[in-house]
Amino acid sequence: MPTKIDDATLVTILAQIKFDEQGLVPAIAQDHEKGDVVMMAWMNAEAIRETLQSGRVCYWSRSRKNLWKKGETSGQHQDLVNFLIDCDGDTILVKVRQHGVACHTGRRSCFYRSVDAKGTIKEIMGVTVSPETLYSGS
Amino acid sequence: MPTKIDDATLVTILAQIKFDEQGLVPAIAQDHEKGDVVMMAWMNAEAIRETLQSGRVCYWSRSRKNLWKKGETSGQHQDLVNFLIDCDGDTILVKVRQHGVACHTGRRSCFYRSVDAKGTIKEIMGVTVSPETLYSGS
Repeated sequence: MPTKIDDATLVTILAQIKFDEQGLVPAIAQDHEKGDVVMMAWMNAEAIRETLQSGRVCYWSRSRKNLWKKGETSGQHQDLVNFLIDCDGDTILVKVRQHGVACHTGRRSCFYRSVDAKGTIKEIMGVTVSPETLYSGS
Repeated sequence: MPTKIDDATLVTILAQIKFDEQGLVPAIAQDHEKGDVVMMAWMNAEAIRETLQSGRVCYWSRSRKNLWKKGETSGQHQDLVNFLIDCDGDTILVKVRQHGVACHTGRRSCFYRSVDAKGTIKEIMGVTVSPETLYSGS
């Protein structure tokens, strides 16, 4: 999604979003072609600006407390295809072109554990790329 | 998803979930057939118990501060098809059979506002059922 969104327009968009008391909003990432939900993370206003203006998805890392340009270290970045805001403005859905895997475990999606009808938690997705490779820095 | 999950098994499942300081976890609902993300809401331990044991999706309403058996008032309920936990246990993805519409505005999905490349927010989905009909109590 090539964007031409200037800072003034961004202010209008941000006014539609309800951030929580930490200044964050949950952002769901869904593969735009395959349709699978690959992850959920958090954005602050700066992450939304970076996402919309660069066309690459950027989150806010709550653990590291910094902007998290997805894929900057691992190479597994997400191109923005569509940016959606929900009815009450407190959740974002980004449709993305996922390069490689979304999960830090090396799986395509973070949602790889499923509860079956008996309550057993089963892994339904294998590791595509080893985490060592993902974060080798090469 | 017909479940036979007793309370002891439930404790094991809940141990895999990281609730926030309010005892809540975000839960994304995705239509299991069409693949569209229809809403995001919050669950507490009791909502998860109700969801898994009844097979119908139940959230925690942060505004009303009570259990929210989705569709109890509107009839637009969600049958549970699959219950997924993400890698770090702090987000749930429920795959559902959505009866009618998910959004209180009468749209199929809560994510009906899209930011285009110029930054204009556009409604990309029409109202299927009028909110007056949804909440008429009939």
